[in-house]
Amino acid sequence: MAKEKKVEQITDMEVDFAQWFTDVCKKAELISYSSIKGIFVYRPYGYAIWENIQKILDAEFKKCGVENVYMPMLIPESLLQKEKDHVEGFAPECAWVTMGGSEKLEERYCVRPTSETLFCEHFREVIQSHRDLPKCYNQWCSVLRWEKTSRPFLRHREFLWQEGHTMHATAEEAEAYTQRMLNVYADFCENVLAMKFNGAEATYTIECMMHDRKALQAGTSHYFGDGFAKAFDITFTNKDNQRAYPHQTSWGVSTRLIGGIIMTHGDNSGLVLPPKIAPVQVIVVPVAQHKPGVSEAAQALCDRLNAAGYRAKIDLSDQSLGWKCAEYEMKGVPLRVEMGPRDMENGQCVMVRRDNGEKTFVAVSELEAKAGELLQAVHDGLYARAKKNLEDHIYEAHSLEEAKQLQEQNGGFIKTMWCGDEACELKMKEVAGMSSRCMPFAQEHLDDVCPICGKPAKHSILWGVAY
Amino acid sequence: MAKEKKVEQITDMEVDFAQWFTDVCKKAELISYSSIKGIFVYRPYGYAIWENIQKILDAEFKKCGVENVYMPMLIPESLLQKEKDHVEGFAPECAWVTMGGSEKLEERYCVRPTSETLFCEHFREVIQSHRDLPKCYNQWCSVLRWEKTSRPFLRHREFLWQEGHTMHATAEEAEAYTQRMLNVYADFCENVLAMKFNGAEATYTIECMMHDRKALQAGTSHYFGDGFAKAFDITFTNKDNQRAYPHQTSWGVSTRLIGGIIMTHGDNSGLVLPPKIAPVQVIVVPVAQHKPGVSEAAQALCDRLNAAGYRAKIDLSDQSLGWKCAEYEMKGVPLRVEMGPRDMENGQCVMVRRDNGEKTFVAVSELEAKAGELLQAVHDGLYARAKKNLEDHIYEAHSLEEAKQLQEQNGGFIKTMWCGDEACELKMKEVAGMSSRCMPFAQEHLDDVCPICGKPAKHSILWGVAY
Repeated sequence: MAKEKKVEQITDMEVDFAQWFTDVCKKAELISYSSIKGIFVYRPYGYAIWENIQKILDAEFKKCGVENVYMPMLIPESLLQKEKDHVEGFAPECAWVTMGGSEKLEERYCVRPTSETLFCEHFREVIQSHRDLPKCYNQWCSVLRWEKTSRPFLRHREFLWQEGHTMHATAEEAEAYTQRMLNVYADFCENVLAMKFNGAEATYTIECMMHDRKALQAGTSHYFGDGFAKAFDITFTNKDNQRAYPHQTSWGVSTRLIGGIIMTHGDNSGLVLPPKIAPVQVIVVPVAQHKPGVSEAAQALCDRLNAAGYRAKIDLSDQSLGWKCAEYEMKGVPLRVEMGPRDMENGQCVMVRRDNGEKTFVAVSELEAKAGELLQAVHDGLYARAKKNLEDHIYEAHSLEEAKQLQEQNGGFIKTMWCGDEACELKMKEVAGMSSRCMPFAQEHLDDVCPICGKPAKHSILWGVAY
Repeated sequence: MAKEKKVEQITDMEVDFAQWFTDVCKKAELISYSSIKGIFVYRPYGYAIWENIQKILDAEFKKCGVENVYMPMLIPESLLQKEKDHVEGFAPECAWVTMGGSEKLEERYCVRPTSETLFCEHFREVIQSHRDLPKCYNQWCSVLRWEKTSRPFLRHREFLWQEGHTMHATAEEAEAYTQRMLNVYADFCENVLAMKFNGAEATYTIECMMHDRKALQAGTSHYFGDGFAKAFDITFTNKDNQRAYPHQTSWGVSTRLIGGIIMTHGDNSGLVLPPKIAPVQVIVVPVAQHKPGVSEAAQALCDRLNAAGYRAKIDLSDQSLGWKCAEYEMKGVPLRVEMGPRDMENGQCVMVRRDNGEKTFVAVSELEAKAGELLQAVHDGLYARAKKNLEDHIYEAHSLEEAKQLQEQNGGFIKTMWCGDEACELKMKEVAGMSSRCMPFAQEHLDDVCPICGKPAKHSILWGVAY
């Protein structure tokens, strides 16, 4: 059958998870390789997912008072060097522009790996008084990081992201804003992407668990203090008429999120897309479309769905029904509507959920309402599964050896106590191959001491193998 | 008075048009200089105009079957060189990446000055059969051109634009699509930006006239034939089962459009924004706001306007009324709504149009309807003025000398016949400082011969001094 043939193009995830992932990215036409190693072409279907993410997140940002800007893509080397830790972190993976036309440049420019320095230079110009604060800026752009290895969506030399940079009069306000933006990301993950995550204190990161039980960092929100303000000499006159340094936050998500969506929801038939960001939410396919009236009846359903605000499409091509079903399953379309001669007679259509294959006969008069219900059911089903996958794969360990064994046997997150020392993090990495993922908001007391060094424990922490 | 003081910051356009333009860009906080010569920061108010342009144009593109993609920002030198004319046109102004991290690259990459070559490389991969055609792709991105001089919006080394690239099975279809996209731009200029233009045959360009009677090219739509397809070896199997080359189009507009908006509609008080792309369409200012109930009454108007779908804002700051009026005039907000104690008593408010200063007393019950009417009136007023400016400044000439004199006296467009030879274009440039702007769709017969060389005339043509 055509259906099976289509799915055969995708390696089973139990056989080779990495190959399954690459197969899905390519066959679903999300992405394509370019002639530069590590840089990808975002194809229409992949880019449309990003557009939907942008649209929803951007509206949320604006509710938080964020204004969009666009900063230069190039950073003079001298500007990058103004903040010491920053340049040390990024310089090794900068791509450098050294020629303009046929002339060698006096100073070389790096293509932005991130734009803190550019924002700070601009903040210095536009912030003078407490009346100029807060400044809550964001930009949607691409950044470049000259890394050695690459994987679709997870690690590109060039990738699309948004980077928020804000300046506040007080540390308290900046900290609260950091937390607020983390909540925006958290709500977005749950309510839009149907992904379950572990939020974190201190590090302010969102860690999701993939099908292969590895962790993926889906978003971060940082409180920077006034370090950059001091390095860039950004000051303002406060209400007491004194010069002061503003406090900064920075927060971002990237097209890595799409990698997370694929690895959280996908299955051996291909992509499974959360309805709210699916480029096509409903695909309408006629059954026995050569029979009189079938195409027209199917078209009418599609038109009604679009008129009701759903993103619906119809496939009237001469491909077989089996091919079409497999194709749109592979592309992760959340809901399929079938309309054939018998359905016409009965005043009904068939709706098939992508997440569990469940079929429902629906009276044509109920079309819009039922489509809405089932799309919500797909979202809820995906979320429940992601939540279960996360909760089922958090294991408690009381020694380094036990942590290592549990990770080897099960993958997932290993929960232990921790003294807070970096040395113990390095030890865990060396012995068990795991990095600290986050310190959950819901702290627990599992032991009195750190299982790595035996000193008094300060926090409960999750360890995992990360993308 | 505070109002006059504000406006004094802007040079009168009759005194120095170029300085007026720069003043408006800076004082209205559209743009800011960066530390790299020729590269600008798009500030929130300027970027918001671009976002509105994007939103409206993107919806129109999608109606034409366009899909958005994102291509790499870097182009390997060997790829850029595949099409001879293309590389000759762009290589002199390419910025080159030669280092990745600390390593010298084997091949240097240019930061895209335009993306034809990248699209062609991708088309080669995804176009195999006539079923794969047409491919109608677009991307929103920034491009880099290492030019010697720069001016806000009109000439940046880095600027934002959209570039559409499409491939079609036949020349006829590609030509029709070129025309279709030109019409999208034309409708957008008239209906959204309130700009009057001269459309053109053959060159497919939209030429608008600025306040200083110079021409600004606001958009282009090109039919490329199959030249790139041949250079990049892009072929498809047509319906007769034979290999064929597809035919290509390319079309784009950039943030230069914002420069056009400023120079078409602005005045000595600053910016004047067409309502459809204005970040703030209505500004509500309370009069005597310390009086009881005034702020609340003004806020209620603002809330109602937003609820009705207008982009409305209120200024409750402690600045004076005069300062506020001048500020939002300078920022080009199309409509100002004033609400004071006497207005409250009378159940009314005052609406002031930005384009002509006209005041209207409006019953509070009519708020939304009247705001809509007046915003439309502002649009129509701006368009009528732009149209008149264009029509009043097209002069007919019958000799090279006359053309030169008319341009020197009046500026604007000079209309003559033309033989079609490039030599005559060069002569006009040399003698009268004008370039050919376009061959209008509405061709006229002014003379039998070309006024430059005396050979038989083929077309009527417009000449002008261009940005």
